[in-house]
Amino acid sequence: MQNDFTLPPTKSGKSQIVFPPPWHYGVTYISAHVKFDKDSANQLLPSFLTTDGEGWIYIAEFISTSDYNWDFMYQDPELVQYMEGAIGFKVNFEGKNYLYFPFMWVDKDWALVRGWLDGYPKKIAKIAMTRLHPLLPKYNRPEPGLKLGGYVTRGGGIMFRLQVELKEKVNSVPLKDFGPFLNLRRFPSRGDSEEDLYEVASRVRDVSNYGEIWKGEAYVELGGYVNDEVNVLKLEEVYAGYFYTLYFRVTTTKLLKRITLQDLVNK
Amino acid sequence: MQNDFTLPPTKSGKSQIVFPPPWHYGVTYISAHVKFDKDSANQLLPSFLTTDGEGWIYIAEFISTSDYNWDFMYQDPELVQYMEGAIGFKVNFEGKNYLYFPFMWVDKDWALVRGWLDGYPKKIAKIAMTRLHPLLPKYNRPEPGLKLGGYVTRGGGIMFRLQVELKEKVNSVPLKDFGPFLNLRRFPSRGDSEEDLYEVASRVRDVSNYGEIWKGEAYVELGGYVNDEVNVLKLEEVYAGYFYTLYFRVTTTKLLKRITLQDLVNK
Amino acid sequence: MQNDFTLPPTKSGKSQIVFPPPWHYGVTYISAHVKFDKDSANQLLPSFLTTDGEGWIYIAEFISTSDYNWDFMYQDPELVQYMEGAIGFKVNFEGKNYLYFPFMWVDKDWALVRGWLDGYPKKIAKIAMTRLHPLLPKYNRPEPGLKLGGYVTRGGGIMFRLQVELKEKVNSVPLKDFGPFLNLRRFPSRGDSEEDLYEVASRVRDVSNYGEIWKGEAYVELGGYVNDEVNVLKLEEVYAGYFYTLYFRVTTTKLLKRITLQDLVNK
Amino acid sequence: MQNDFTLPPTKSGKSQIVFPPPWHYGVTYISAHVKFDKDSANQLLPSFLTTDGEGWIYIAEFISTSDYNWDFMYQDPELVQYMEGAIGFKVNFEGKNYLYFPFMWVDKDWALVRGWLDGYPKKIAKIAMTRLHPLLPKYNRPEPGLKLGGYVTRGGGIMFRLQVELKEKVNSVPLKDFGPFLNLRRFPSRGDSEEDLYEVASRVRDVSNYGEIWKGEAYVELGGYVNDEVNVLKLEEVYAGYFYTLYFRVTTTKLLKRITLQDLVNK
Repeated sequence: MQNDFTLPPTKSGKSQIVFPPPWHYGVTYISAHVKFDKDSANQLLPSFLTTDGEGWIYIAEFISTSDYNWDFMYQDPELVQYMEGAIGFKVNFEGKNYLYFPFMWVDKDWALVRGWLDGYPKKIAKIAMTRLHPLLPKYNRPEPGLKLGGYVTRGGGIMFRLQVELKEKVNSVPLKDFGPFLNLRRFPSRGDSEEDLYEVASRVRDVSNYGEIWKGEAYVELGGYVNDEVNVLKLEEVYAGYFYTLYFRVTTTKLLKRITLQDLVNK
Repeated sequence: MQNDFTLPPTKSGKSQIVFPPPWHYGVTYISAHVKFDKDSANQLLPSFLTTDGEGWIYIAEFISTSDYNWDFMYQDPELVQYMEGAIGFKVNFEGKNYLYFPFMWVDKDWALVRGWLDGYPKKIAKIAMTRLHPLLPKYNRPEPGLKLGGYVTRGGGIMFRLQVELKEKVNSVPLKDFGPFLNLRRFPSRGDSEEDLYEVASRVRDVSNYGEIWKGEAYVELGGYVNDEVNVLKLEEVYAGYFYTLYFRVTTTKLLKRITLQDLVNK
Repeated sequence: MQNDFTLPPTKSGKSQIVFPPPWHYGVTYISAHVKFDKDSANQLLPSFLTTDGEGWIYIAEFISTSDYNWDFMYQDPELVQYMEGAIGFKVNFEGKNYLYFPFMWVDKDWALVRGWLDGYPKKIAKIAMTRLHPLLPKYNRPEPGLKLGGYVTRGGGIMFRLQVELKEKVNSVPLKDFGPFLNLRRFPSRGDSEEDLYEVASRVRDVSNYGEIWKGEAYVELGGYVNDEVNVLKLEEVYAGYFYTLYFRVTTTKLLKRITLQDLVNK
Repeated sequence: MQNDFTLPPTKSGKSQIVFPPPWHYGVTYISAHVKFDKDSANQLLPSFLTTDGEGWIYIAEFISTSDYNWDFMYQDPELVQYMEGAIGFKVNFEGKNYLYFPFMWVDKDWALVRGWLDGYPKKIAKIAMTRLHPLLPKYNRPEPGLKLGGYVTRGGGIMFRLQVELKEKVNSVPLKDFGPFLNLRRFPSRGDSEEDLYEVASRVRDVSNYGEIWKGEAYVELGGYVNDEVNVLKLEEVYAGYFYTLYFRVTTTKLLKRITLQDLVNK
């Protein structure tokens, strides 16, 4: 295992906050397909991206590990479990569509740092979502009429609340129409001659297997506070809600473009 | 619904920290059957209980609700989900065996207060345990050789760590040999003429349904710190570990004896 | 030290979640004196209390210990530090005025249990408030124009946000006009023949020393969610804000009345 | 204000997890000057650094803000307050001495990301330390004989516990003999043609003002767990403990060397 993929570099590499890929993700999602007011959504994009306002919101529970730390599954479950919430847009970058997330919150440090390496703007928040138990008299399995929900709160603000009432099993989620992921790898210079890293990249999923997918009606309530401009967004329509599981594996990202000061000035 | 079962009493009763029973519990346990040094275990008991040191340790994930707040399942998952860890002994009270827990930690306020009402000495702690995901390439289901684990930490101390390696499916856990639950309902007087409540009770499970039960080898590491005398305990033997699910329902406790100052002085 | 003041009773008493009194409290408060709509406030009272809507809201940082655990100050600071937020009313009980808090949130288990013993309806929440540092170029000491603030969030809801802009030093806070504390000691029966404890008491402060008191303008934003009916309250006026420190010591509560089913039915 | 110093870049820049410098820090430290076994300490360094084992350990409370978000002081205190714990060594890099921290834990996301930009290997942990209150009968101000302490816990492990008994006021802490800070700015490549940023830099403090400094005896207990190799370290001597306040301001870091694969292979 590479011992200096992330800090701190030690002789063994065992103290690294993020172990090298490949990374495995077993996920359970509650999500909503929405349409934001176009102008409001564009306020939350850098100058080189635009959106027509189509959006994707989710809350999810992740079990995730590198190939190098499967043992954390029983040694320290905090190092392989996290909750995540996010708000994304279908964006246009140089003529093609992508899925870009201006907001993504998690509840573990290693998930935050791993996200930043791949260009996700993760922050730490508190995230809760419905869990089922097979032996309870109700809420024991997905079925028509079941209501699931959750929320993300950060500091003194609620980021959003999301609820979905299940209707029927379906074969896919509409994410495939958003295009590939668009990520912003960013690590600014802090002094003379230091690198000012700003790369547009696309995260690649080597493998992606969906489990059961349920579709239904969604209810979305947007919040936001002083450091999270969710309050800028205006919701125009909530198309549908989804509840599904997914496995995916990630090894690399693909560079789309290096951003320079010149690019930003020319915009 | 009774509007003053617990504080605060309001006209609607909707702000109560604990809603009235019946209460439903869907649980996933990782546990260990152990033998503590007899003298060390007796240090952690009140004068009217004794133990020969047989013990039960677990970490568990609960989905739990009152009949009156099933809607919290999707409205606020924090109000129906909690983690719990505990250390219990087979104790003798007036000639009969019971299962008594000197230590029980949870991570939600309503689980703490509900526990106190029924005589469990709950404190708030951080509790983590292995979770499986059906789509991951490993750790997707219980099977021989799978290792599960977790821990409880409170303040500046580790209360205990517990790991179990699964061997085989079995039909029962040895808890039935410990006897009924023994609980201490305690609410001390704070001034003249106030009630000094101290009752030995036994919590009743109206319904109890086990799911799959796995048995294996357990590894237990005891900790403790300045306000949790787990460090007093000496572990003599770890008999076996278990991983299982359970549903139970609770409506009442049964009074065994009212404790008075006189009882305690006579001991 | 009494070894069974609170659970769990052990031979040494060192594992008790709350050590016996006297208890010491060093507090820093940000507060607001307000007027709630009378009808809305009465919705949050039990049948034997009424209010005209005068209210008191605060966020505070506590350093607090029993005479028996001063050593926790350096051994485990989590066991002597907590944050608290609360909403109170001037209430009338049998012809006299008292200060009663239908909502009180803290962030530590021992503060919750200690509060319950004395009749405060404490729940666990996240509470944040401004802290000053004497060496910073701004926010280094209280002075006219300084803005302080904070909030309480619980689960998926914001309970309230509070901000105060300091104007001048004053000699007192208007709390003295609310009357003594009124507390509800409550520990419901859980089975036949068990005590159903419900006492109206008044917490006594043996000693009470104010430090510097600042007065100013306050801004209050009320929230609430499914288990905390703050949303029922309507704010009519915000009179003033305060920022002050206080030391007090508590040993006992004074019983005002025992509540019985008969009392409640007669109301 | 630069709107894309950190993610996410929005038109206003107000959602950035870290606002651009200058950054202000008002800090209260409890620390210990120690000597680690040389071989054990070198296990925790990258190949281009060495140490003779002299070390510095601290727990601290920070009030910190950018020039652009002083308003967060009252709007959201969580965004300007954090706790930090760290373990550092006097290291040698190309013939000169520096102070390098292989371990640094904080409890806020923005403090983590800001630290990473400047080359500190921050992780999220729970950190507690003694706080004094001027009105308490004890623990109201620093004085000879006062004991202060705290700890860092992360996941299922205790990183370290630290306690200091104050003896006398002194004029300085021994940090000045460790040399300038040495930081590792690290942002690894995640795909072909992407930047693999690895820079040795030194964080610059534009201003640094000490408040009162107390010296005394320190007690240090080292922990560590599966992702934090504190357990590798062997403590040889604890020279002294300190309790002090400090203000400093940071605007830039100074590049010392760019690390390349070739550098690492040649070592």
